[in-house]
Amino acid sequence: MSHPRGPLAQLRRGHEELVLGLLRKHGPLSRGELGKLCQLSRTTLYDILAGLVAGGAVVTTGPQDAPRGRGRPAETLTLNPEAGQAIGIDFARRAVHVAAVNLAHEIVGSASEPHDADLSWERRVDLAERLVGSLNDGGLRLGALSAIGAGVVGPVGWPEPEDDLEADEPAHPVQSLLRERFGAPVLLDNNTRLAALGEAIWGAAAGGRDVLYLRLSHGVGGGLVVGGALHRGAYGLSGEFGHITVDPDGAPCGCGGTGCLETVASIRAVLDAYRAAGGRADDVPELVKAIRAGDGTALTLLKGVGGTIGGVLAAVCNAIGPSVIVIGGELAETGPALIEPVERALRAQVMPVSRHRVSLRRATLGEAAGALGGIALVLHESPLLSRYPAGPDLAPDLLEDTKQRHP
Amino acid sequence: MSHPRGPLAQLRRGHEELVLGLLRKHGPLSRGELGKLCQLSRTTLYDILAGLVAGGAVVTTGPQDAPRGRGRPAETLTLNPEAGQAIGIDFARRAVHVAAVNLAHEIVGSASEPHDADLSWERRVDLAERLVGSLNDGGLRLGALSAIGAGVVGPVGWPEPEDDLEADEPAHPVQSLLRERFGAPVLLDNNTRLAALGEAIWGAAAGGRDVLYLRLSHGVGGGLVVGGALHRGAYGLSGEFGHITVDPDGAPCGCGGTGCLETVASIRAVLDAYRAAGGRADDVPELVKAIRAGDGTALTLLKGVGGTIGGVLAAVCNAIGPSVIVIGGELAETGPALIEPVERALRAQVMPVSRHRVSLRRATLGEAAGALGGIALVLHESPLLSRYPAGPDLAPDLLEDTKQRHP
Repeated sequence: MSHPRGPLAQLRRGHEELVLGLLRKHGPLSRGELGKLCQLSRTTLYDILAGLVAGGAVVTTGPQDAPRGRGRPAETLTLNPEAGQAIGIDFARRAVHVAAVNLAHEIVGSASEPHDADLSWERRVDLAERLVGSLNDGGLRLGALSAIGAGVVGPVGWPEPEDDLEADEPAHPVQSLLRERFGAPVLLDNNTRLAALGEAIWGAAAGGRDVLYLRLSHGVGGGLVVGGALHRGAYGLSGEFGHITVDPDGAPCGCGGTGCLETVASIRAVLDAYRAAGGRADDVPELVKAIRAGDGTALTLLKGVGGTIGGVLAAVCNAIGPSVIVIGGELAETGPALIEPVERALRAQVMPVSRHRVSLRRATLGEAAGALGGIALVLHESPLLSRYPAGPDLAPDLLEDTKQRHP
Repeated sequence: MSHPRGPLAQLRRGHEELVLGLLRKHGPLSRGELGKLCQLSRTTLYDILAGLVAGGAVVTTGPQDAPRGRGRPAETLTLNPEAGQAIGIDFARRAVHVAAVNLAHEIVGSASEPHDADLSWERRVDLAERLVGSLNDGGLRLGALSAIGAGVVGPVGWPEPEDDLEADEPAHPVQSLLRERFGAPVLLDNNTRLAALGEAIWGAAAGGRDVLYLRLSHGVGGGLVVGGALHRGAYGLSGEFGHITVDPDGAPCGCGGTGCLETVASIRAVLDAYRAAGGRADDVPELVKAIRAGDGTALTLLKGVGGTIGGVLAAVCNAIGPSVIVIGGELAETGPALIEPVERALRAQVMPVSRHRVSLRRATLGEAAGALGGIALVLHESPLLSRYPAGPDLAPDLLEDTKQRHP
């Protein structure tokens, strides 16, 4: 599938999505069965199918165990398991992570590579392209790619529903680079928010409609899934849990504020505090070792940090009412030494009526969370699905399909 | 319109909604014009119109300035400006507030009456019925009522999208009482959350898609409008800003927690603190008088309370990223003495990048906010609109109409 603009191209892509959706739902179908289900004219359907087969999205297979004799047995059409439908890319500060799903919405694979923090966007996109090329042992086909969901560091504005998603002004330089390189639409969001979506769709909070995700890393941030959808906030500035004030007389924060949670609970803040208290650790793995060895200084420190984090989570919980809180980022590797005091403070400070209704979990997707969230973004928010012109019998199928993707 | 259940009744109501939507959009139309626009069969349309005219939703008017001679001039059909389409009712702790809109979505009027806190639900519904009967000088017709949006004190669960909204189990006793009395579906929510929706649709934050509403009254609560829709949270427990801890060593709160914002910023907390500091005021109007007279004790007290409120709002802002914060409830009547310190603390503690992006406003709807929010709930979430079976040419009109209601 190429990605020209204009209403006719939009209509054609809508037809393609319809046919792919039917094959996803029903499995292998003959042309005749597809024709009945999709209600497109024979000419249109055959034209669409020819394009899908040529692009590698759909493969034709001969009939298995079909009785011979009565004319030529019907050929069946199947989704190509090697055809990538959506790619997720997480452009983190010092690494690129990618993942892809095929047309059956199965995860085909994921890959990562670290890089210097000052690498240009051009080179980062080169790296992403190479990583995508390595997926499925190099066998991933991109002819049926519907879109890319990419995450970047920092706030990302999001167009209003009435904006044209394919308008000429990209929100970020990487958007046009990716669009040129992969020839597909690019949906962009903050990478921590995408990690939140990833954990809510595929990870620790899978199936949760109201999820709070907190990432404790070099920075402290997070994201909210609200009613099953990623929440962005009026100016793309939601989920900034790291900049909630925990001590008005505290340390200055990189954001320009004072005493933010990040000044207490980032990797550097924790390591600095640990060393100031006489501990020795240059990174999180060394801190984890000290904790496993029962180091009292480390345990006391994390108890205090965890209590502060729990208090912030309780406040946000009262405001938003999530069913699941997910804690990710490298500092979550410190395990119960941190998570237990977080949980104690959370349950002590959240409204008593909510105390046993919210569950606290460690993130499960690791560094792939952002890339997987990018895929979820594409599958949930593809303008192709929402803009498909509804017909009398097409609409119910399409709606049902869309509902399945928005559980 | 009566409200029997079942798919055929649902279809009929869908047709009625379609015809009413066309009259709302295009103004007066002849039967012929309506027939072309709605694409229903002539028999079905005439049957639907007969029902709407008999129920008082639609009135027929003779042709104005029509040329005589060529047969009988066409009669036109118009929405009855006296026909209520939606009623909002706020069952507050000690008062009932009602409001209604007609089929053109114009507010027909609102009314309130206080009552004892221990009045039975039966009697409260009597009161609501009487107040509704008084609207439009008693001229409001209820034959075309599509639904009632009602607010009650306390948490209200909300059915999942797949639940049957007309299922037999009511979420609250008032729901079945209202359904029996008015013969219309009843949508229920927490009344403070409905006030948030009211302010976001008709009031201080009209048109805002991401709105935080804080009510400072006998209790301290609020609501969130997220992406243009009311946010409910996983267990119907969102917007509980009053139970965010502001002092872990503070006073016990009615919720079972300690040092909640409500223990500092409720009417009673403020009046108690004022009297403890030597001030004399039995209620908010007396406190307002003291402030207007420049009473230093009152001003110092409100400065402190405002600073605490502003800190909580900053934390929630960082988490959610609203574009507008609305402060309502009786304590907001203290004006700049409270609002200015709230704003100073908010701007000092919110992320600097958000500092000038969020605007703080006083609520404008007063005690009618909850009832108006109930109407907004009906117009936004009527299952009739979302369940209307889409046809080839009907869908675009209907979608457009729905979009207009979800700006």
